Amino acid sequence: MKLFESKYDVIVVGGGHAGSEAAAAAANLGSHTLLITMSLQNIAQMSCNPAMGGIAKGQIVREIDALGGYSGIVTDLTAIQFKMLNKSKGPAMWSPRAQSDRMRFAEEWRMRLEQTDNLDMFQDSVNGLLFEGDQVVGVKTQLGLRIYAKTVIVTAGTFLNGKIHIGEKTFGGGRAGEGASTGITEDLVSKGFEAGRMKTGTPPRVDARSLDFSKMIEQPGDDVTSKFSYTNTKSLTKQRSCYMSYTSPEVHDLLREGFENSPMYTGRIKGIGPRYCPSIEDKIDRFSTKDRHQLFVEPEGWHTTEIYVNGFSTSLPHEVQYKALKKVAGFENVKFLRFGYAIEYDYFPPTQLQLTLETKLVKNLYFAGQINGTTGYEEAAAQGLMAGINAALKVRGDGPFILQRDEAYIGVLIDDLITKGTEEPYRMFTSRAEYRTLLRQDNADLRLTPRSYAIGLASRERMDRVEEKQKKTDLFIKFLKDTSVRPEDVNPILKEKKSAAVNQSMKMFKIASRPQLDFDDIRRFPKVEDFILANKIDREVLEQAEVHVKYSGYIEKEKNSADKLQRLENIKIPVNFDYKKIHSISFEAREKLSKIQPSTISQASRISGVSPSDVSVLLVYMGR
Amino acid sequence: MKLFESKYDVIVVGGGHAGSEAAAAAANLGSHTLLITMSLQNIAQMSCNPAMGGIAKGQIVREIDALGGYSGIVTDLTAIQFKMLNKSKGPAMWSPRAQSDRMRFAEEWRMRLEQTDNLDMFQDSVNGLLFEGDQVVGVKTQLGLRIYAKTVIVTAGTFLNGKIHIGEKTFGGGRAGEGASTGITEDLVSKGFEAGRMKTGTPPRVDARSLDFSKMIEQPGDDVTSKFSYTNTKSLTKQRSCYMSYTSPEVHDLLREGFENSPMYTGRIKGIGPRYCPSIEDKIDRFSTKDRHQLFVEPEGWHTTEIYVNGFSTSLPHEVQYKALKKVAGFENVKFLRFGYAIEYDYFPPTQLQLTLETKLVKNLYFAGQINGTTGYEEAAAQGLMAGINAALKVRGDGPFILQRDEAYIGVLIDDLITKGTEEPYRMFTSRAEYRTLLRQDNADLRLTPRSYAIGLASRERMDRVEEKQKKTDLFIKFLKDTSVRPEDVNPILKEKKSAAVNQSMKMFKIASRPQLDFDDIRRFPKVEDFILANKIDREVLEQAEVHVKYSGYIEKEKNSADKLQRLENIKIPVNFDYKKIHSISFEAREKLSKIQPSTISQASRISGVSPSDVSVLLVYMGR
Ligand SMILES: Cc1cc2nc3c(=O)[nH]c(=O)nc-3n(C[C@H](O)[C@H](O)[C@H](O)COP(=O)(O)OP(=O)(O)OC[C@H]3O[C@@H](n4cnc5c(N)ncnc54)[C@H](O)[C@@H]3O)c2cc1C
Ligand SMILES: Cc1cc2nc3c(=O)[nH]c(=O)nc-3n(C[C@H](O)[C@H](O)[C@H](O)COP(=O)(O)OP(=O)(O)OC[C@H]3O[C@@H](n4cnc5c(N)ncnc54)[C@H](O)[C@@H]3O)c2cc1C
Repeated sequence: MKLFESKYDVIVVGGGHAGSEAAAAAANLGSHTLLITMSLQNIAQMSCNPAMGGIAKGQIVREIDALGGYSGIVTDLTAIQFKMLNKSKGPAMWSPRAQSDRMRFAEEWRMRLEQTDNLDMFQDSVNGLLFEGDQVVGVKTQLGLRIYAKTVIVTAGTFLNGKIHIGEKTFGGGRAGEGASTGITEDLVSKGFEAGRMKTGTPPRVDARSLDFSKMIEQPGDDVTSKFSYTNTKSLTKQRSCYMSYTSPEVHDLLREGFENSPMYTGRIKGIGPRYCPSIEDKIDRFSTKDRHQLFVEPEGWHTTEIYVNGFSTSLPHEVQYKALKKVAGFENVKFLRFGYAIEYDYFPPTQLQLTLETKLVKNLYFAGQINGTTGYEEAAAQGLMAGINAALKVRGDGPFILQRDEAYIGVLIDDLITKGTEEPYRMFTSRAEYRTLLRQDNADLRLTPRSYAIGLASRERMDRVEEKQKKTDLFIKFLKDTSVRPEDVNPILKEKKSAAVNQSMKMFKIASRPQLDFDDIRRFPKVEDFILANKIDREVLEQAEVHVKYSGYIEKEKNSADKLQRLENIKIPVNFDYKKIHSISFEAREKLSKIQPSTISQASRISGVSPSDVSVLLVYMGR
Repeated sequence: MKLFESKYDVIVVGGGHAGSEAAAAAANLGSHTLLITMSLQNIAQMSCNPAMGGIAKGQIVREIDALGGYSGIVTDLTAIQFKMLNKSKGPAMWSPRAQSDRMRFAEEWRMRLEQTDNLDMFQDSVNGLLFEGDQVVGVKTQLGLRIYAKTVIVTAGTFLNGKIHIGEKTFGGGRAGEGASTGITEDLVSKGFEAGRMKTGTPPRVDARSLDFSKMIEQPGDDVTSKFSYTNTKSLTKQRSCYMSYTSPEVHDLLREGFENSPMYTGRIKGIGPRYCPSIEDKIDRFSTKDRHQLFVEPEGWHTTEIYVNGFSTSLPHEVQYKALKKVAGFENVKFLRFGYAIEYDYFPPTQLQLTLETKLVKNLYFAGQINGTTGYEEAAAQGLMAGINAALKVRGDGPFILQRDEAYIGVLIDDLITKGTEEPYRMFTSRAEYRTLLRQDNADLRLTPRSYAIGLASRERMDRVEEKQKKTDLFIKFLKDTSVRPEDVNPILKEKKSAAVNQSMKMFKIASRPQLDFDDIRRFPKVEDFILANKIDREVLEQAEVHVKYSGYIEKEKNSADKLQRLENIKIPVNFDYKKIHSISFEAREKLSKIQPSTISQASRISGVSPSDVSVLLVYMGR
C-alpha cells in the first residue's frame, strides 16, 4: 500500500463532489490516487438540497458527463424526478434538473469509486500539508500519518474551520453532525496564501407525514423524461412529485421577530453568503415589498418521509424557524427533523490559481470546489474533475487540459474564478457565458468528449457514440437540405401552423427552419419519417438537427466571435511576465496583471480594471 | 409539534440499536415519542462488525422479534449471509447469525422508524437533562432547545465523553468520524450517580480488491437458510461468502513491536475492555503459547469492496497494524480503508437501575444499551426494547413488564446487570442462562409473543401465528403419540440407523425419540408424511415437535427447577426495605442488599456475597 511504502501520484483531500470527481478522473487517467476523507460513510453527500442541475448547472453536469466524470451517471441512477427547465425558451436555455434520492446518491457514488481502478480510499482527517521548498509533497493526518504524493488536490468544501450558526448558538463543524477541519488553512497561510471567509445556509428538514399536501400545488416531473448522461443510463419512468407553497406577510413578520438574534444581523457571521441562494431572512429584508416567496417542498428520496423545504434557508433561532414555518399553508402541523443553519468556512480567493487549478504559490498543489469560493455541487464537481485531470496529466508529464470559454461552461467557470476572483460565493448562470448558444446541454458530448478522449479519459465507447451521433446528425441535415417538398404537400401544414404558403417546391431544410414549425410537424412528411426509421435516427439526433436548423444563424455568429477570441487566446503571455516595466498601462491594471498573471492576452482582457487600451499596449509588447 | 408546545410521553436520547428499539416500542405502545440523535444519517449504525446474532445473541434477536421489536426484521431484510451456529449440538444451543449489508441495515432501520406512528425524530445533540426534584422532566440540546417529556430514555452508547485511541494518538469522538457527547454524564454525576469508564475496540477495514482469497478458506453461508423474524420475511436464497485466514508467529512478533506505544500497555486507556472480544494484542499477550489466531474476513455488504477483519481488533499504532496484517496469508498487498482503534467511554454501573431499567435515583429516567456497561448490538437492542416498553407502560399508568430468567435471555441479561452489576463490558453467553433448554431460538415466539400481545405491543397477526404454530405442534405430537408402527415397517429403518429392532408395534413418538433417528427418518413413514402434507405442517412446527420429542426430559427438569425459582420470585421484598435492622445476616450481604434493593427473594439470592443462610434469614423476615 502506497500509504506507507511509496508515493501516490495524486492525493485528493475530501470526498465531496469535487473530491469524488477529482479522484475518479485522476485514477481513470492512470494515476495512482488516494482519496482521504473524514468519513467513508459520507462520500459525495448532498449537504443541502438533494438535486442536481438546473439552469446553467444542468449544462455543467452534462459537460462533466461528456468528459467522463461520474456525476451525471450517479444522478441518473438515483433520480426520483426529472425536469427540463426553460423548455419554453430556445434550446440554448434548456437546462436539465433532477432530484435525487439522497442516500442512494451517496451510496452509488461510493460504489463507483470503489470500483475504480488505481483508486485507494482511506478514512482519516488531513490536518496539514507537507512541503518541500516551493512544492507540496504530501499530507499529514489526524491519526499521525504522513502520506506522500507527487500532487495533492484539496477539496475541503465547507469544512475548513467550519462554524455552524443557529440563532445565538455557534459551534464548530463542517456540516451538521460532522466535525470541522483544522490545520490546512493555517499551513497554507503560513506559505503566503490569502484566505477569506464565506458562509452559506440550509433550510430545515421536516416530516412529510406532518404536512397537508392538499393545500399546496403539486409539481410533477416531466411527462417525457430526459437524463444527464450520454451513456446508456435509463431515463425515469416512475417519479415523485414535489409541491409548492408560499410564505405570507404573517410568516415574514414572525421571521422578523428573530432578526435581533440572527447571527447575520447581529454581525456575528462575517463571511459573505451566496447572493443567489439567499436565506429567507435575506429575502424578506432585501425584497421588503414582496409579500410572499415561493417554497418548494421536495422529498429527499423514494421512500423517506424527510422533506427539504427549498427556499426557506435560514439561521434564525430555532423557535423562530418553527413559529414562522407553521404559518405556511400546508405546514400547520409541521414536525421538524433538522433545523436550518448557516455555516461559515475558509476559502481561498481563486485568483491564486492557474487555469489548471494548480496554485501559483505552491507547485503540484491543486484546489477544487467550495474552497475556491464557489457554491453548488455542480460547480464543485466540475472543478474537481478538471483538477483531477490536470494533476494526472502533470504526473504523466503531459501539457495542461484547459477548456476555453467557448467550449464549455466549465471553461467559463474556471476562467471567471482565476481571472476575476470572487468576493461572494460564485455560482454559474447562463448569462456568464458569452457563447451560450454554443454551450448547450444537447451538445456537450459533441463539444467535449473528443477532447477528453484525446487525453485518454472518455472511453472509446463514449467516443463511438459521439461519432455516431455526429454522423447521423450530418446525414439527417444533409437529407433535409437535399430533399424538396411540393407546395401541395407542405401548404396544408403551413396553413395549419399559420406560416406563409409556398408556391414552388422548396427544400425541407428551409421549411424546417421556419419558427412556426417544430420537428414534430416535419415528421408528418412520410419521406422524413421514413428516413428517420430507415436510419434509426434517435431523439438526441433529432434534437441536434433541430437546433442546427433553427439556430444556425445565431450559432454561426457566436462561432465567429469565438474565433476572434480564440486568436487573442492564442497570444500567450510569458510566465512571470514583468508588468512593472510597462509604464504605459494604468497602475491598477499593472497591479492586477501582476497578481493574476494571465496566461493569454484574452485572459488579460477579462480582468476587471484592465481596459481595452491596456490590452492594446500589451499586444504591442507581445509583438502584435 | 410537541418539541415546543407540550410534553412528549417519551424522549429517547440516541438512535443506536438501543435507542431505535426503545423509540419503536414506546411509539408502538401509543406513547408520543421523540427520538433525538446526533445525526439522522447514522440511525442504528453497526459501529463494529456488520453481523447480528451468534451464540446466545441470536436467541436475543429472536426474542426481540417475538416481542415485536424491529431488529430481527431489519436483519432479515438486509442479510447477505445466514448461518445457524452450533447445529451439531442440541437445539438449545442452535444460534442464528447473519451478516448484514451495513448501509442497507441502517437505511432499513431508518425507513421503519419513519413509518412508525407516534414517533417524531429530530437531529440534535443532547447535552444535559432537565430535572424537577427527584424526577427527570426533559432534555437540553446543543442547539439550545429544552424539550419536555414524562419519561426520558438515555441510550448514548459509546459516545459519553468518548475518546478514541490509535497508538499514541488520542482524540475526542463517539465513533470514528463522529463527535463525542458531553454534559449528560456531568448532569447525572451531580445528581449522585456513579459513573465508570469502559473501552472497546474495532479492527481495520480493508479493500477486498487488495486481498488474495485463494489463500484463505471460504466460509459459505448455510445451504438451507433460516432467518430471525417470526413474521413473513424471506430467508436468503443468494448469499455472500466470508473467508478465514490465520495470524502467525511472525504476525505476533510484529504486533508486539507496537506494545510500547499501545494506549493499553502504556496505561493511557483506563477503561476495562470486553474480555470476550479481546483485541489482537490482548490475545497474543494472554495466550502467548498459541501461535496463531483465526481471522474472519467478512464483506460489509452486497456490493461494497469494504471488508471487516474480524478477530483483528486493535488500537496499536497504524504502521504496526499495517505491517502485521500484511503478513497474514492473503493480505500480502492489503490496502487499508480505515484503521482499527479503541474507544473509551462513560458507563453507569447498572446496579443503579431497577428491573424496568428505570434509575433508582431519578424517577422516569431510563438507561439502555452500552451506557449500562454491556457490549453488543443485540444486548443493546434488547435493553432498548425493554426500556421503551416500560417507559410507555409507566406513562399509561400500567405495571412494569419484566421478563424472568426462565422466560428469556433478555430476562437473564437485565437481571444480571441489575443484580450483579458488571465490572467489564457484559455480553451474553448461553452459560449465563440456567434454563437454557427452555430459552431456545425456535420457541421465542411461543415464550414471549403472548406476553407482548397482552400489553398491546405484538400484533394480532403475530399472535395468530403463534397460536397456529402451537396448535399444529400439539396436533402433530398427538399424532405421533397416537400412531403405532409395525415392526416390519420400522425395523428396516432402525437397522439402517443402527438402532435396536423392535418386536411388537410401537408408538411413533417412542421411535422418534430415539437418538439415532432424526425427523427426516420419521418422515419416511408414508403415514407421517401424509399427515404433514394434509395438515400443512411447516418446518417451524416440525422443529418444535422434534425438540419436544427429543428433549422433553431435559425440558421437564428445567421447568421444575424454574418453578421452584418462581416460588422465590413470588416472594416480594418491600420497596426500600431496611436491611440494617437484620443483624443476623452478614455485613457484606447487608451492604449489597441495601445498595441493590432486590425486589424479590429470588433476586436477592443471586447477589454475590448473599449466602444461602442469608436468604433463609430473609425468608423468615418475609414471613415464610
Ligand atoms: C449548510 C450548507 C448549505 C449549503 N447551501 C447551498 C445552497 O443553498 N446552494 C448551493 O448551491 N450550495 C449550497 N451548499 C454548498 C454545497 O454543498 C457545496 O457547494 C458542495 O457540496 C461543495 O462540494 P465540495 O466537494 O467542494 O465540498 P463538500 O461537499 O463540502 O465536501 C467536502 C468533503 O471533504 C471532506 N473533508 C473536509 N476537510 C477534510 C480534511 N481535512 N480531511 C479529510 N476530509 C476532509 C468532508 O468530510 C467532505 O466529505 C451548502 C452547503 C452547506 C454545508
Ligand atoms: C469502536 C467500537 C468497537 C466495538 N466493538 C465491539 C465488539 O467487538 N463487540 C461487540 O459486541 N460490540 C462492540 N461494540 C459495541 C457496539 O457497537 C455497541 O454495543 C452497540 O452499538 C451499542 O448500542 P447502543 O444503542 O447502546 O449505542 P450506539 O450504537 O453507540 O448508539 C448510540 C447513539 O446515540 C447517539 N448519541 C449519543 N449521545 C447522544 C447525545 N448526547 N445526543 C443525541 N444522540 C446521542 C449516537 O449518535 C448514536 O447514534 C463496539 C463499538 C465501537 C464504537
